[in-house]
Amino acid sequence: MSGTFVTFEGVDGAGKTTQLRKLAARLRKRGLDVVETREPGGAPGAEEIRRLLVEGAPGRWSAETETLLFTAARRDHMERTVAPALARGAVVLCDRFADSTRAYQAAGRGASRALVDALHELVIGREPDLALILDVDPEAALARGTAREAAKGGGETRFEAFGLDFQRRLRDAFRAIAAAEPQRCALIDASGAETAVAARIDAALARLPALAP
Amino acid sequence: MSGTFVTFEGVDGAGKTTQLRKLAARLRKRGLDVVETREPGGAPGAEEIRRLLVEGAPGRWSAETETLLFTAARRDHMERTVAPALARGAVVLCDRFADSTRAYQAAGRGASRALVDALHELVIGREPDLALILDVDPEAALARGTAREAAKGGGETRFEAFGLDFQRRLRDAFRAIAAAEPQRCALIDASGAETAVAARIDAALARLPALAP
Repeated sequence: MSGTFVTFEGVDGAGKTTQLRKLAARLRKRGLDVVETREPGGAPGAEEIRRLLVEGAPGRWSAETETLLFTAARRDHMERTVAPALARGAVVLCDRFADSTRAYQAAGRGASRALVDALHELVIGREPDLALILDVDPEAALARGTAREAAKGGGETRFEAFGLDFQRRLRDAFRAIAAAEPQRCALIDASGAETAVAARIDAALARLPALAP
Repeated sequence: MSGTFVTFEGVDGAGKTTQLRKLAARLRKRGLDVVETREPGGAPGAEEIRRLLVEGAPGRWSAETETLLFTAARRDHMERTVAPALARGAVVLCDRFADSTRAYQAAGRGASRALVDALHELVIGREPDLALILDVDPEAALARGTAREAAKGGGETRFEAFGLDFQRRLRDAFRAIAAAEPQRCALIDASGAETAVAARIDAALARLPALAP
């Protein structure tokens, strides 16, 4: 028995977390075993690594050290949360995964894409069955993202602090990934009403036999 | 101008830290610019990663995640401490480096040596000019190591907690590394009086032109 692995990707504030929760609820209504998780994090050790990554000053880590830390957290998350859930046949919905590293650490921060890909190949290997890439105007998304962090009083603003030009490079990178790997990626227009975005996500999921309506 | 990079390696309690300090003092007396540092750690970010590695339960991380965390800390340490010091011509004395990852994570914990080597090649690249591998009976060394941690009230006992068989595998691994790479490694008998061990270290350093007496 092997489950289904779906990731939510996109710039900060694109609505990934909200749409993931709503999709989880829809799938559970259909009786499916759904695991909601996130990166960096999703396992106790990986959550400790998360704090080193999302808090503090932008220059705290180089792009290369950051890539290693994300990969360490991902390896822990895969071993302890994702792989066991997939092994029992669950649907795993993950808020960010390897495409975020390709966008943020390579295109955004300037680590070599070859390094990012080599690390993934070496210690992660697995890709999602479908990456939902939520596409929105970064200016609107950034406003939403920082507003959200400010509202909950959180300090997870390190990547938002890289600024708007950075988020624009991320959007371009995510769109390029979706264009380059259309089999495992779906570019979702994430503007407009939440229900409209949810309907677009459902349409994209139809390509996965296990999740087809 | 390019400095000299010397690492101290060996099982827990072999006397690395003591001998490193004493060597630093001897070299400074000769007017050399000496930087004393350690791994994991040696830079502010790397020291934060250190806490994730040396504290807590033995099973906190898999061998592979642990290797990634050590490599992340090493990359940060190289960028922020070691490379700048070598660039200005200093002698860098480092308490543990890549040979410890080869011994602890590969031989000790069972990560594949190919994985450890590929990661090193990909993101570190550099080897020490000389690795001093301090060789002692692990039983005596383990008693010294845990006694030292207990004395300072520290919680850095995660690797000691793997036990004596683990330390025996480490010793064998360090000896194998020294035998396989005699140009960049010196196996030092670290039993007996501190002054005797220091004399053996001085003799080994004679092979480095910059440090020859």
